[in-house]
Amino acid sequence: MVKWISRTGKRVEVPRLRPRSESLPVTKVDLADLTPDLLTFLGKAAYLQLTTFETLGRAMSSAPTTEAKELLSHVAALSLAKHHGLTAEIRRHGEEPGRVMEPFTDAIDAYQRSTQGGDWFEELVACHITAGFLDDFFIRLAAGLPTDYSSRVTAVLRADSGAEMLAEEIRVVIDKDEKIASRLAMWGRRLVGDTMLIARSTLAPTSNTVSDEARIEPVFTELIAAHTRRMDGLGLTA
Amino acid sequence: MVKWISRTGKRVEVPRLRPRSESLPVTKVDLADLTPDLLTFLGKAAYLQLTTFETLGRAMSSAPTTEAKELLSHVAALSLAKHHGLTAEIRRHGEEPGRVMEPFTDAIDAYQRSTQGGDWFEELVACHITAGFLDDFFIRLAAGLPTDYSSRVTAVLRADSGAEMLAEEIRVVIDKDEKIASRLAMWGRRLVGDTMLIARSTLAPTSNTVSDEARIEPVFTELIAAHTRRMDGLGLTA
Repeated sequence: MVKWISRTGKRVEVPRLRPRSESLPVTKVDLADLTPDLLTFLGKAAYLQLTTFETLGRAMSSAPTTEAKELLSHVAALSLAKHHGLTAEIRRHGEEPGRVMEPFTDAIDAYQRSTQGGDWFEELVACHITAGFLDDFFIRLAAGLPTDYSSRVTAVLRADSGAEMLAEEIRVVIDKDEKIASRLAMWGRRLVGDTMLIARSTLAPTSNTVSDEARIEPVFTELIAAHTRRMDGLGLTA
Repeated sequence: MVKWISRTGKRVEVPRLRPRSESLPVTKVDLADLTPDLLTFLGKAAYLQLTTFETLGRAMSSAPTTEAKELLSHVAALSLAKHHGLTAEIRRHGEEPGRVMEPFTDAIDAYQRSTQGGDWFEELVACHITAGFLDDFFIRLAAGLPTDYSSRVTAVLRADSGAEMLAEEIRVVIDKDEKIASRLAMWGRRLVGDTMLIARSTLAPTSNTVSDEARIEPVFTELIAAHTRRMDGLGLTA
């Protein structure tokens, strides 16, 4: 957790740009106040997870070797298990997953199209980068769910997503072909931009735009820092 | 199990066309003598199962409703679990699944292309019809594996494949649109033809072509009977 310590004395407050360090306690950076209602959360998180699974399925189909295909099949199984962990919570709430996800499919399908890789390498990176960011984001957002759902949903989202398997496969690609690294670094920037947008659209704004922004910004700063570490882990510049 | 009872007395034997009822005991119709070596069996069965999973993934991506997509995600999970059940047996034998499946990928990829549906309805029927036939086939062929593998592999293959979920979804489609039924019936015939060919190519022929054929024919007669029941269950003419 990050703690900003103000070194200055009294400061003039500038509307909409108040320093977060003074306006809000930021010892625990979370989005609990901006968590949407339970079914909106579950519907969006579940459908995004299904999208990740579909992307993995496409990457699996176009894998250049049978070993890579087999590896991706394991990552796909983990992704599908997460999706079903989330839909199980929808059912527990007495609703049908299909109906609950329905209102969010258009926006998420558009996101999926915009983050669809042009080749296998881009597909691999897309799976890794978007799934990592979205898991991080929804884990934070889950803090605002009703207590029992919050702990179960967090456990589902924290489960292994096969990220290390994917990262290892991507590193092999990059090590073999240096030129590909700069292309994939660019691709990573595009991915994180689109993923931030879809993540932000999940937040339920309060009537106070200023305090919303003050709450959102440090969280996204941390999410981007985690994204940068993920790219570093691949040997790519974020 | 089928038992042919000869009503005639002594008959003249015609090479390559001996009546099965007299030449072989057919109270137990199986393919044990024609089972290939363990790794060939597992490699082919596992890669075909992965192919089924890929076809389900495509059908999922093109599903017309979110509910249908959700249903297919469950069938896909069952299919992937079967694949991993088979690759676990490859690992138990001390081999890497990717390497073991590799020699069979060209032929099976070609089979996959030829059984790829032109639209969502054909994809659904393809998943149901080919997976059903191949499970039936490999269960019979598994009788010839070393005993411990045989029982575990049979358990994997007999596990729920979501066939009833798929069948229910297909019946809904057919009930809504009568014209589609005759197209899907035609499609079913094409599917079973191609699936029989890929199944047959898995058999390890002995030096005795005549007795091989005498053994294969009744098994395929039963597999086709099961296929016909599967088509009947969809309301389609086989």
